[in-house]
Amino acid sequence: MVKSSTQTVTLEEFLEFPETKPTKEYIDGQIVTKPMPRGKHSIIQGTLVSAINNTLKPQKIGLALPELRCTFANRSIVPDIAVFSWNRIPVDDNGDIANIFNSYPDWTIEILSPGQNQTLVTGNILHCLNNGSSFGWLIDPESRSILVYPCNQQPQLLDSSSDIIKVPNIFSDFKLTVGELFSCLKI
Amino acid sequence: MVKSSTQTVTLEEFLEFPETKPTKEYIDGQIVTKPMPRGKHSIIQGTLVSAINNTLKPQKIGLALPELRCTFANRSIVPDIAVFSWNRIPVDDNGDIANIFNSYPDWTIEILSPGQNQTLVTGNILHCLNNGSSFGWLIDPESRSILVYPCNQQPQLLDSSSDIIKVPNIFSDFKLTVGELFSCLKI
Repeated sequence: MVKSSTQTVTLEEFLEFPETKPTKEYIDGQIVTKPMPRGKHSIIQGTLVSAINNTLKPQKIGLALPELRCTFANRSIVPDIAVFSWNRIPVDDNGDIANIFNSYPDWTIEILSPGQNQTLVTGNILHCLNNGSSFGWLIDPESRSILVYPCNQQPQLLDSSSDIIKVPNIFSDFKLTVGELFSCLKI
Repeated sequence: MVKSSTQTVTLEEFLEFPETKPTKEYIDGQIVTKPMPRGKHSIIQGTLVSAINNTLKPQKIGLALPELRCTFANRSIVPDIAVFSWNRIPVDDNGDIANIFNSYPDWTIEILSPGQNQTLVTGNILHCLNNGSSFGWLIDPESRSILVYPCNQQPQLLDSSSDIIKVPNIFSDFKLTVGELFSCLKI
């Protein structure tokens, strides 16, 4: 993630730009490019979205969405996984899921990429927590560990295989250990 | 910071080893090598130690110590700067400062180096907070920002020059803004 130095556009102008690969975010008036996902990032993202949805979607408790643009509180960010409680998923006139999400995810999940600036990613998680989200995860494939950020609390580092990773209370049907999370890396 | 994979020594055995450059830490049964400080790290460390001591030492409120080994709660870590309140500084029979610190710093300060694993550094800060420290700072020279970790609270990301960086209550005579902190990088 690299902060561009000389961009001065408004959030409204930024949102008019076409989407790009890699993804761009709008943070504190600056346009920031997320790294392109590589193998480890990608498999964790895919596996975790599936696992969360397998538990929460059939019961209409929540929905995990990968690479979803969330625009709120003067930032436009794209968490690696954004989990919304069912009743907060915006819908259009047909009752279909909306295209534009102008709100915070209840649970934001970021997966570190090699060389990515972790402070900026942490800043996005804190931005979510300061504006309505109840929970953040920061997954570090390199150190096989995960930083859990509950709203208004001190974060927690989990790095033992048997550690059960905390989730927001409303999603407590979903249970996962650190070992289970990283087992998807093994081919 | 690289976790060695196959080391299995006890904390007692680790403490018998001679000190090395770069510094080694003992974390969760593993020996971890800190990166050698480079220019930006070094100038921030030196400037900040001086600034803190200029304020806190004459009044005998606190003392900032660079590269001090602190051994407690089954870890032996070397914060970039460890700040102790005056009455917690261990002394020998002569009333001189002791050589061995078997306790937590009241305020732990880490300065990121290029390529350093930020999750592991964050883990050391959380270890301090979970075992008596009241405050941690994680300084990121690359993004010119600082993550502030107060005990039992959600961390805070400060990245505007005018932001005043919070310090432990007992050290509140020491005041610094983000801009002042990073101004030492300019030659």
